[in-house]
Amino acid sequence: MTPEQLVRKVTAITGYTHAAGVEVVSAEPGQVTLSLAKKPELLQFNGFFHGGVVSGLADHAAGAAATTALPAGKIAVTVDLHVNYLAPAKGQTLLAKARTLQVGGTICVVAVELETHPAEGQGPCAVAHVTLRVVDMPPLK
Amino acid sequence: MTPEQLVRKVTAITGYTHAAGVEVVSAEPGQVTLSLAKKPELLQFNGFFHGGVVSGLADHAAGAAATTALPAGKIAVTVDLHVNYLAPAKGQTLLAKARTLQVGGTICVVAVELETHPAEGQGPCAVAHVTLRVVDMPPLK
Amino acid sequence: MTPEQLVRKVTAITGYTHAAGVEVVSAEPGQVTLSLAKKPELLQFNGFFHGGVVSGLADHAAGAAATTALPAGKIAVTVDLHVNYLAPAKGQTLLAKARTLQVGGTICVVAVELETHPAEGQGPCAVAHVTLRVVDMPPLK
Amino acid sequence: MTPEQLVRKVTAITGYTHAAGVEVVSAEPGQVTLSLAKKPELLQFNGFFHGGVVSGLADHAAGAAATTALPAGKIAVTVDLHVNYLAPAKGQTLLAKARTLQVGGTICVVAVELETHPAEGQGPCAVAHVTLRVVDMPPLK
Repeated sequence: MTPEQLVRKVTAITGYTHAAGVEVVSAEPGQVTLSLAKKPELLQFNGFFHGGVVSGLADHAAGAAATTALPAGKIAVTVDLHVNYLAPAKGQTLLAKARTLQVGGTICVVAVELETHPAEGQGPCAVAHVTLRVVDMPPLK
Repeated sequence: MTPEQLVRKVTAITGYTHAAGVEVVSAEPGQVTLSLAKKPELLQFNGFFHGGVVSGLADHAAGAAATTALPAGKIAVTVDLHVNYLAPAKGQTLLAKARTLQVGGTICVVAVELETHPAEGQGPCAVAHVTLRVVDMPPLK
Repeated sequence: MTPEQLVRKVTAITGYTHAAGVEVVSAEPGQVTLSLAKKPELLQFNGFFHGGVVSGLADHAAGAAATTALPAGKIAVTVDLHVNYLAPAKGQTLLAKARTLQVGGTICVVAVELETHPAEGQGPCAVAHVTLRVVDMPPLK
Repeated sequence: MTPEQLVRKVTAITGYTHAAGVEVVSAEPGQVTLSLAKKPELLQFNGFFHGGVVSGLADHAAGAAATTALPAGKIAVTVDLHVNYLAPAKGQTLLAKARTLQVGGTICVVAVELETHPAEGQGPCAVAHVTLRVVDMPPLK
């Protein structure tokens, strides 16, 4: 499996990302972009993407970026996730752009920028730093 | 509105928490417990609650705990969210127990413990520290 | 070496904690309290402990709490550190009370409460969640 | 006072940064670089910069970067600090490069990259995301 095939497979078979409608925009080793289209089940009462949806997309993108940078048979699972919310997530599409800052034998660190499109202002609506642990990949159905 | 009524209303009218099935277990000023029953749309491919669902419930519980501690007409919105994942979220129900550590005029800080039931081991499956900003409550529909 | 002897030794031989004047109040497996007396080299321009001194004491206390919970020959090094500042660190003594939330073969997570004495108000002036990695202990001189 | 004069003054009059030997490399609105030369009082027992020194320099650099972006008479104080340690801080000089991600009326968010020189590898030895609150500047002596 190429890194992109792996990310597409894990995103498609995961209940949460499949149900939310997460799309894989691109995936190469250490760098993954995911997108999520606006729909009522993802919103805060004010009509913007819910903060929990933003953090969830950051988490999944970080796991994908780290895993694509690992040797075959390994997967990265989140140890901790820190999200700074910079602006309301107002647009029609939420994008998470994740890239690895560190890839080690036991720990990976990933930076994620979250943007909405069309963008209201300049720059991301949130940023995240995510720490992950490297474990053996379980069999994927 | 009592704090509990407010939390119930905001949780029910919010697309994300309504769609996910978030329930308000209890809500008093500065202290809120939410629960979420296991269902396929909330899971990781391994069958546990997805990390993004865990962080999303933490975020919503933190906002609720802070808001119930504020004067009427104010609401707390997340500035940043830090989640430590301690164990797989394996149970049938995910609980988020949030309590305020600080309630100020502009900033609140909330600690959240996340547990699953039935619990596999001792202690929470995740903990979070959440920083929030105090803003005027928009009209709720 | 007992856990307490180990923490005393590492704190005493470390340039930073020795120079700052860090004292070990107590150390048992998974639970360590350190203290630091006020002196000009540790302060912010407003006369309170500098935020960087607070985060530094949290970091050292977390490492000590995790290491005392590990098998002999292992030491915990910080992977990431998240500190929430709740109130100015105004007192004469800064205390860091660290306890492990998780102790694993590769990762530990520690919660730290920071207080000053005499305390101005109730509760800690800061709290921290720290993630650490388990490595082989290098030889201590 | 220019932003650079302000950062130099606050860094020089602060007990901690003065005693540690923090130097202001550059300071312009929203972007500040600080440096710290290796000396025994700043080190971990293994001879590298102590993690608490790294977090302390990140904290000070973030406050400086945010404050230089604020209107005169305002200063930014840290609300929370998240540091990811990527590699041992092995070099002779520790540099903190801070730039604002968000500057608001009540909240600022700053990203900091920490490097050592000469650099062992590529990239930073640590990164930080720092949230700050805007308050009135107290009189500086």
